[in-house]
Amino acid sequence: MSKAGSFVLHGAAAYSESKDRLITYESAYVVCEDGIARGVFREIPEKFREFPVTELGEKLILPGMVDLHVHAPQYAFHGTGFDLQLIDWLDRYTYPEEMKYKKKLYAERSYDLFVEDLYCGASTRAVIFATRHVGATVRLMELLDETGLVTYVGKVNMDRNVPEGYCETTEESLLATEKWLARCEAKEFQNTMPILTPRFTPTCTRALMDGLGKLSAEFGIPVQSHLSENLGEIEWVKNLEPDSAYYGETYDRCGLFGTNGKTIMAHCVHSGDEEVRKMKENGVFIAHCPQSNMNLMSGAAPVRRYLDQGMRVGLGSDVAGGAETSMFTAMKDAVHVSKMRFALSHPEDTPLTLSEVFYMATMGGGEFFGRVGSFMDGYEFDAVILDDTNIATLHRMNTEERLERAVYCADDRNIVSKYVRGKKLY
Amino acid sequence: MSKAGSFVLHGAAAYSESKDRLITYESAYVVCEDGIARGVFREIPEKFREFPVTELGEKLILPGMVDLHVHAPQYAFHGTGFDLQLIDWLDRYTYPEEMKYKKKLYAERSYDLFVEDLYCGASTRAVIFATRHVGATVRLMELLDETGLVTYVGKVNMDRNVPEGYCETTEESLLATEKWLARCEAKEFQNTMPILTPRFTPTCTRALMDGLGKLSAEFGIPVQSHLSENLGEIEWVKNLEPDSAYYGETYDRCGLFGTNGKTIMAHCVHSGDEEVRKMKENGVFIAHCPQSNMNLMSGAAPVRRYLDQGMRVGLGSDVAGGAETSMFTAMKDAVHVSKMRFALSHPEDTPLTLSEVFYMATMGGGEFFGRVGSFMDGYEFDAVILDDTNIATLHRMNTEERLERAVYCADDRNIVSKYVRGKKLY
Repeated sequence: MSKAGSFVLHGAAAYSESKDRLITYESAYVVCEDGIARGVFREIPEKFREFPVTELGEKLILPGMVDLHVHAPQYAFHGTGFDLQLIDWLDRYTYPEEMKYKKKLYAERSYDLFVEDLYCGASTRAVIFATRHVGATVRLMELLDETGLVTYVGKVNMDRNVPEGYCETTEESLLATEKWLARCEAKEFQNTMPILTPRFTPTCTRALMDGLGKLSAEFGIPVQSHLSENLGEIEWVKNLEPDSAYYGETYDRCGLFGTNGKTIMAHCVHSGDEEVRKMKENGVFIAHCPQSNMNLMSGAAPVRRYLDQGMRVGLGSDVAGGAETSMFTAMKDAVHVSKMRFALSHPEDTPLTLSEVFYMATMGGGEFFGRVGSFMDGYEFDAVILDDTNIATLHRMNTEERLERAVYCADDRNIVSKYVRGKKLY
Repeated sequence: MSKAGSFVLHGAAAYSESKDRLITYESAYVVCEDGIARGVFREIPEKFREFPVTELGEKLILPGMVDLHVHAPQYAFHGTGFDLQLIDWLDRYTYPEEMKYKKKLYAERSYDLFVEDLYCGASTRAVIFATRHVGATVRLMELLDETGLVTYVGKVNMDRNVPEGYCETTEESLLATEKWLARCEAKEFQNTMPILTPRFTPTCTRALMDGLGKLSAEFGIPVQSHLSENLGEIEWVKNLEPDSAYYGETYDRCGLFGTNGKTIMAHCVHSGDEEVRKMKENGVFIAHCPQSNMNLMSGAAPVRRYLDQGMRVGLGSDVAGGAETSMFTAMKDAVHVSKMRFALSHPEDTPLTLSEVFYMATMGGGEFFGRVGSFMDGYEFDAVILDDTNIATLHRMNTEERLERAVYCADDRNIVSKYVRGKKLY
């Protein structure tokens, strides 16, 4: 890994300025100064003329992508187990796997595979669920930190409705979290940060969530969880927490819904008006996970409405509810789910456009990390370089067509180089 | 390419006996005698002991897959142009591309790319639309014939509602078809056969379809077309052919709906009861094209109902309505579309299972070619060999799990060997 530098990349480029404004160049100079993007130009501006230029020919230069929701331990069974809906799927496949991460050696070997996969794909940043285990979670953070990818990782909290041997008591869960945060602090990670991670309301008592809310407030630590993914889950939450007007309130009342630290809620497939209003008010990030929502039969999230209301929306692979960490697949699936929603149930919700899904995969999720996900002046410089010559055609395609084709046909074979915060990873 | 032989493959194996009966072995001997499958065994039966055994270790041995609906010329823009619904998409992207195939050199170069892609994927058989052009269509057939893949290829017929320069007159279309059939006969193809291909009712007058129906009856040539894909298309057919009770009748009354030759109708997303009844009665094959139906916002075909009624259903990539020729993707998308249909609009139609989509990709489409798509005794021996070691996990997965994972995560990288009719292609 090189140092964050000042340089210019020359090639075909695409990036978002907003969800509706996709900028593409057939041939352009993408400028990075001390790890910060300075814009994209047809000619190198005078003040950057001294920077070294990397000639990329016709390769595609895109902002690094952001996987806003992914479960590292579930990578072990990715691509299998899609015969069940959420709650049964957790019991049958997920908890039995996650329990294994008590063993640090198993965890290390399995996380190695996950981290390598993430490293080879289009993601430069990710927000990740680990397991309840402090040791394994810290090891995952070490492995990720070494890659140069920028990540948030969460030790998972759960104190009810989880199989014996994997469940924590409220006290254990909070103590372990404090211990974990202290160890994170001592490690002085360069690229990896902790994020508080109550699994979801069905597995977290109010006492646990109150405790986590206090930690979030005290240390300003961000939060991630799941919300309104599945109708059975929502019904369960109603029964467990009859005092809450809506599912999201079970987080909000504990300070875990964007009021203390930046917060990501994964899925939001079935969020009602009140919940949506509160997410908007609190600036909660929605991690839309289209393939997971198909695989686990959860439904089709109203992403058109979220985007039209100016809410914060990114994309998540949600491995292993999703089968792959690929953000190309996530963009394609986001279009597909929106088209199914449009065709089957909500003709008023027009399908997502290429510009919108690309925005969500880059700037939408990137905003959780700050000014990330674009080549506009002032953004942290994350980039992936694509060689798409293996996707054969006689056509001379323009950059926007090549970008669309990448969404539908590209995979990790096409990623030949990757930059994070101005450092070249490979 | 080797000769059709007698041999045994040893490895992990999976195949269908019926849509509900997926057979898997962790370690088995798959027997081919003179190009015909003789079954799968734990020990090599006495009478096959002399056959040479190829040791494939833990590799997966699957029946070759059948792409029941794909447009070869549209491969040129695969992965792009998914912003429009069917009729506008045809006008904007498809017809302008297909017109180019008047030039044989362009056709040859472009078809080369398509054929190579098909050769490298999991399909051992395909049923293919070409263009209206006899020369280019024959060249495509030559290229395909050389590969050893078994295919049907259709010169497309159209005599109305197609842009000038690409439309034929009724007489031209029928004469060109006869000329084409004569050339096919003279070529003495080993692996490639002609199929009559009225594009779809909006572009084919009754006179043209009557003429094609007579050709089908006279020479026993099979038929392929499109049916009830898109609501706008169906409305258009109603206006064009007010005498027909339903869309499918426009084919049936001309002898192009399974009564003269085997017939494939692609899509059948919105087929009504009468149409379904007639398809069942006539043994029409349905080519379900799930990704195309998502990309072009056509809807979600009622495949659960088709399968439950015992109708003939296979899978089509429908490139370039679908982005890829991958049959893994087609299986995955078929599950996804069925889950969206289940979750969003038809809770009574339970999602398709792994067993069902694998059946459709192999035996379902294979039936169009005869006894094809399984390793049961008497089936033509088509097989693909998968090395899935690049899909990393610490788990020791069984064959069914590996098959499911292949559906969600495999691509052409995983295909290391391919057999058609007992001949090894590579």
